[in-house]
Amino acid sequence: MSHTAELIAVGTELLLGNIANTDAQMLSQGLSTLGINVYYHTVVGDNPQRLKAAVELAKTRADLIITTGGLGPTCDDLTKNVLAECFGKKLVFDEGSAQRIRDYFARLHPDRPMTDNNLQQAMLPEGCTIFSNDWGTAPGCAFESGGVRVIMLPGPPRECRAMFRYRAIPYLQDLADGVIVSRTLKLFGIGESAMEARLRDEMQVMTNPTLAPYAKEGECELRITAKAADHHQAISLIAPVEAQLRGIFGDKVYGADIGSLEEAVLALLKGQKKTLGTAESCTGGLIAKRMTDLPGASAVFRGGVVSYSSEIKKSVLGVPADLLDKYGAVSAQVAKAMAEGARRVLGCDLAVSATGVAGPDQDDRGNPVGLVYVALATDKGTYVREVRAGSGRERIRTVASHHAFDLVRRYLTGLLIF
Amino acid sequence: MSHTAELIAVGTELLLGNIANTDAQMLSQGLSTLGINVYYHTVVGDNPQRLKAAVELAKTRADLIITTGGLGPTCDDLTKNVLAECFGKKLVFDEGSAQRIRDYFARLHPDRPMTDNNLQQAMLPEGCTIFSNDWGTAPGCAFESGGVRVIMLPGPPRECRAMFRYRAIPYLQDLADGVIVSRTLKLFGIGESAMEARLRDEMQVMTNPTLAPYAKEGECELRITAKAADHHQAISLIAPVEAQLRGIFGDKVYGADIGSLEEAVLALLKGQKKTLGTAESCTGGLIAKRMTDLPGASAVFRGGVVSYSSEIKKSVLGVPADLLDKYGAVSAQVAKAMAEGARRVLGCDLAVSATGVAGPDQDDRGNPVGLVYVALATDKGTYVREVRAGSGRERIRTVASHHAFDLVRRYLTGLLIF
Repeated sequence: MSHTAELIAVGTELLLGNIANTDAQMLSQGLSTLGINVYYHTVVGDNPQRLKAAVELAKTRADLIITTGGLGPTCDDLTKNVLAECFGKKLVFDEGSAQRIRDYFARLHPDRPMTDNNLQQAMLPEGCTIFSNDWGTAPGCAFESGGVRVIMLPGPPRECRAMFRYRAIPYLQDLADGVIVSRTLKLFGIGESAMEARLRDEMQVMTNPTLAPYAKEGECELRITAKAADHHQAISLIAPVEAQLRGIFGDKVYGADIGSLEEAVLALLKGQKKTLGTAESCTGGLIAKRMTDLPGASAVFRGGVVSYSSEIKKSVLGVPADLLDKYGAVSAQVAKAMAEGARRVLGCDLAVSATGVAGPDQDDRGNPVGLVYVALATDKGTYVREVRAGSGRERIRTVASHHAFDLVRRYLTGLLIF
Repeated sequence: MSHTAELIAVGTELLLGNIANTDAQMLSQGLSTLGINVYYHTVVGDNPQRLKAAVELAKTRADLIITTGGLGPTCDDLTKNVLAECFGKKLVFDEGSAQRIRDYFARLHPDRPMTDNNLQQAMLPEGCTIFSNDWGTAPGCAFESGGVRVIMLPGPPRECRAMFRYRAIPYLQDLADGVIVSRTLKLFGIGESAMEARLRDEMQVMTNPTLAPYAKEGECELRITAKAADHHQAISLIAPVEAQLRGIFGDKVYGADIGSLEEAVLALLKGQKKTLGTAESCTGGLIAKRMTDLPGASAVFRGGVVSYSSEIKKSVLGVPADLLDKYGAVSAQVAKAMAEGARRVLGCDLAVSATGVAGPDQDDRGNPVGLVYVALATDKGTYVREVRAGSGRERIRTVASHHAFDLVRRYLTGLLIF
């Protein structure tokens, strides 16, 4: 399989800027993992002529066209009509899809009758492969015509993601000789340019697996992608590369195929049956929020204190007034006292704290924007780290919370904390 | 000015799915406000041939082409070369831009010399209008050729947004006869479909101003856009429509041209010199995080307690054990006690709480996913609201936090709380 793909998103709401085309991002990531090149994204509105023009052009330069959006029941939804016309297919009624739509409605709205326009969604191109939709009403589909393969997916991001993952990817893999498997190492504590510079020579000579670096908000990723006859063989191509990378980057690698630092921390806490609490100043609740974004956090996360004012650092966390007077709220000493106070007040095994200057202005002691202290209190003592978290309020808070999670991860895996 | 615009984003990172094309969303919103229709978005990689094909096509169907990305110093950055070629322009060296680039570097990296490739950014199409860049190094530019107007903006979203707002919009407005002004009303407490149904008749007959409804995660917006000879006249077209809408939707309108509920709350707290605190269970720090996303929150936000476990509800917030035993953590009674406890412990004028079932599973008392109680404690008593916050962990937490802010807003503006 050596496809050249083009993505066409259909929806006036995209051209008005009501939403961003995140479907294209998600599909591009997935197609890249499958080794399929994407050369163009196009967005058109709910307009048959302009959609037709985009499809006719795509036919001349791609052998895989994936559309998103325009499959629903309202008159705006035109993708199937236009695509069928462009490829000389008739739309035919599919009773199986109609029944699924009726069932979906009965389940979701037991109290009101389904309007007939919903059954338009069961009209599908003759001879297509139907992608049944367990996450909404509009089925997707795929067909091949004149050497071009077409896949149509619904537009709502949640449906599009699920339909791509559970319907389109298996369909594409069935067409391929062999499989494509990838594995993503997640790193914290190294910059993107340092990571890339270290790997430049290796990456240039690698063909299978390939290695792709990514960076976002203070974190880095390395994706290893192998093509092979079967899954087992792909894994055995990936394993030595992973070992080599782990050798190079050591304990900066915090996991493989894992979503985030807080997921790594949650797994470690559960495995070691330890509880966590937080004491937050500049991060203002972000560390607790990230922890509780994860289902199942309640097993190990007890809670936290957002001590945004000095009074609450004193009254709730018991930070001594003289520490605050002498060193100021943004100091290693206060970070330490906050973490220790949270551990005591919340009755947890471990507590992390963050105090710093998120900006836009320096604090009243002249500490610069971006200076943050994070601390971890444990039964073996308290660790403090000084961080320069860059600039921009959001970035500073994000990076500060990364560091708090990194302290917990390093402690629970027995690594040196510095 | 009656432009048809097409957006072309340049960058392989978009085709790999490393980032979403949020520049296109931001530009589309802005162009829509200016009354400019956008018919296509296209994304191409760092490839001269494919970019050239996209530009040649855009020339045939748009009279305004805006490119984003590909203006930087590395060899990947090719937008100016290709656009100049497509429109038969030469690139010429602009000493003013070069000096700005040298100054920017000297300010940002006083310790290391600037490499010469940075000065490539000062090569610009002959006769263009230069958009100086105060947010990065690469200048943008605009020119007209054969009835097509071209604007080139840098790709990084922060730079793109600022350059569009402060350079491209004034440039476009100078071309227009008259001005386009819009004002956005923000609503909470009404669903999108109810809002649209109420306005359908009005919207169909309106031509100037126009009215555009939007919805996102439990909130709604109504954008009023007027075209007129000058700003004063536009405002006088908007004012009666705004008054009419405020009459229809009453206290569901929480502000105009304001970013969010928490911004409205922050302004009210500051105006009335009142302090706020939080007690969060299911929202896990999100309310505090949203509050502290805003610069200047420290003037009125004292802090919060994330009481994710029952122990912390008791030990830190002083929620009576018998309330928890009798009614369970997800109950109006516990929401009330949490808010009152937070107000007492944090020493603030007002305290909000949230306790509910964020899922994925119902709680151990059989309360359904999405059931949330929010409460507001004040010196005049405590208010509690029961909320059905929908499904999906993220949505439930977001909607719950909206309701917490809505309680504060209604209380501080003297509205009925229900």
